[in-house]
Amino acid sequence: MILAEGYSADPHHGKTARGVIRYRPEDIVAILDTERAEGDTQDGFPVVRSVEEARQYGPTTALVGVATTGGRFPPKWRELLKDAIRAGLDLESGLHEFVSDDPELVELAREHGVELRDLRKAPPGLNVPTGANLTHGATTVLTVGSDCAIGKMTVSLELDREARRRGIKSEFVPTGQTGIAIAGWGISVDAVVSDFIAGAAEQLVLEGVERGGELLLVEGQGSLLHPFYSGVTLGLIHGSAPHAYVLCHKAGERFVEGDERFVIPPLSELADLHARMSLLARPAKVQAIALNTRDLDESAARRAIEEAEAETGLPADDPVRFGAGKLVDALERP
Amino acid sequence: MILAEGYSADPHHGKTARGVIRYRPEDIVAILDTERAEGDTQDGFPVVRSVEEARQYGPTTALVGVATTGGRFPPKWRELLKDAIRAGLDLESGLHEFVSDDPELVELAREHGVELRDLRKAPPGLNVPTGANLTHGATTVLTVGSDCAIGKMTVSLELDREARRRGIKSEFVPTGQTGIAIAGWGISVDAVVSDFIAGAAEQLVLEGVERGGELLLVEGQGSLLHPFYSGVTLGLIHGSAPHAYVLCHKAGERFVEGDERFVIPPLSELADLHARMSLLARPAKVQAIALNTRDLDESAARRAIEEAEAETGLPADDPVRFGAGKLVDALERP
Repeated sequence: MILAEGYSADPHHGKTARGVIRYRPEDIVAILDTERAEGDTQDGFPVVRSVEEARQYGPTTALVGVATTGGRFPPKWRELLKDAIRAGLDLESGLHEFVSDDPELVELAREHGVELRDLRKAPPGLNVPTGANLTHGATTVLTVGSDCAIGKMTVSLELDREARRRGIKSEFVPTGQTGIAIAGWGISVDAVVSDFIAGAAEQLVLEGVERGGELLLVEGQGSLLHPFYSGVTLGLIHGSAPHAYVLCHKAGERFVEGDERFVIPPLSELADLHARMSLLARPAKVQAIALNTRDLDESAARRAIEEAEAETGLPADDPVRFGAGKLVDALERP
Repeated sequence: MILAEGYSADPHHGKTARGVIRYRPEDIVAILDTERAEGDTQDGFPVVRSVEEARQYGPTTALVGVATTGGRFPPKWRELLKDAIRAGLDLESGLHEFVSDDPELVELAREHGVELRDLRKAPPGLNVPTGANLTHGATTVLTVGSDCAIGKMTVSLELDREARRRGIKSEFVPTGQTGIAIAGWGISVDAVVSDFIAGAAEQLVLEGVERGGELLLVEGQGSLLHPFYSGVTLGLIHGSAPHAYVLCHKAGERFVEGDERFVIPPLSELADLHARMSLLARPAKVQAIALNTRDLDESAARRAIEEAEAETGLPADDPVRFGAGKLVDALERP
């Protein structure tokens, strides 16, 4: 069951809910939003207004799928979380405020024998990379981008789907809370101690190999140019040690975070910068461009893709809109 | 009093002791090392073999100046720390294992009314940058480098000394445990949650301005090319938003961390890379090269400096060996 309280009022805060609905629908039984009308459905799932009402669908876990304002739980939310625990559901949350650090929830969870899982909590025992990121046998592809929140996770997931369809032993490697909620494993690299970003990224790649991945599609974070999150981005690049990048960009976007002081350079320059910033021991290049054309009509989208190809000399496509075939072809090129 | 237990046996682990002895000698009364002989001195300070013996010098604080193997306190160390607390000394430590999280030490400190200070512990309430790193009126200079542990902190401190000598209102901005031990303030940016590296760096720069700095000499960390710590480096670059860089390099060093897989590119390429990776809203260039010539004789050192100048077209010098005058001149150029 996805706790999507207030999601209908503000879908922007529902990144985790949206991601799980799209990429892990087989595990969803209901969506909870007290603000919706009786009998509502969303994306084919029943919308319930209380934990009680959800019980008929047999949920086992309640996933916090919406960011709360300020990252803390308002009183109404606390009641929902307590209801879920009392109903015997495990709780899973990707917020900065950890449910497993909340004394009241911890006590209640103990009483009811349920588990509290914080998707963003760093695992213990992290360290710097061992060097095994350079010696495992798999091929690693990292999504990078001109900005945050333009679809790097989605591109990695679409590439993974298409690769699997082709019979490639591919593995999506989650590096943020939504990716973790979808895949059921991973580390939120933005929440680890900064000395250990690269070490956490290496650990994720090695786990991808252990899970049988021969092609690892690592979820990118932030942007090398981002004024807040670039440190996470570079640590992820050097720790995951990709063989190739897919550069993600939102068509028409000119500024990082929409801030005019942060002008996004041309895609060809961005591609060159990623090549130059690659791990010294693992030269890598941008092999394809993933363009997010959500805000364009179809002919404008096709034009934007052609322009990106002309400017960079690389294959480009919108894998959500037109399928990931062309991008996977680009990755399969020798 | 500096706790430098075992320092004579392994001076490489004594980075904090060395830094404080060099740059904060006025606050040192004694150095403790149980392995040294009675009556020994070090850098002009009495060496004592016990906290009891140190009391004649009137210490108020015991600084852990040596990294312990594995970052944890061995039994012998614990006894020393407990002796110091029982003697009424505040305890200051830059290790990854926090003294203020150790129940036994916390209890003992409470009994004896002393303070436990972890130089590496991140302050609460960190967040992403506010943008004030771009609007304060000071000039910010960041040391960057081809590798870790080649003297970036030392260069920043030498530039600060020389600038002050010239009457410039200069402020050294500490970003790591040794810098913090020397300056008495700061944040260890490698120990913050990775989402907040840039925010912590901005906070440090703003504190430098509050302290009256018109020229901020920010201690650099790691290297853009470092396979472990590059994330910290880039977050520090984007958060501190420097107007200029001083590029530090150890003369003759060809590989990052001495690892042949990580070949350091030419200094001119490194300088160009830093310019390109600058915050989009704050273009900055390498303005001078600081060469660590420790391992060379004087004529070889002068030759290495000339070669660096010829290769990069920038002023170069070893500020520890030959004074920081030439580098400060380079920063004062319009």
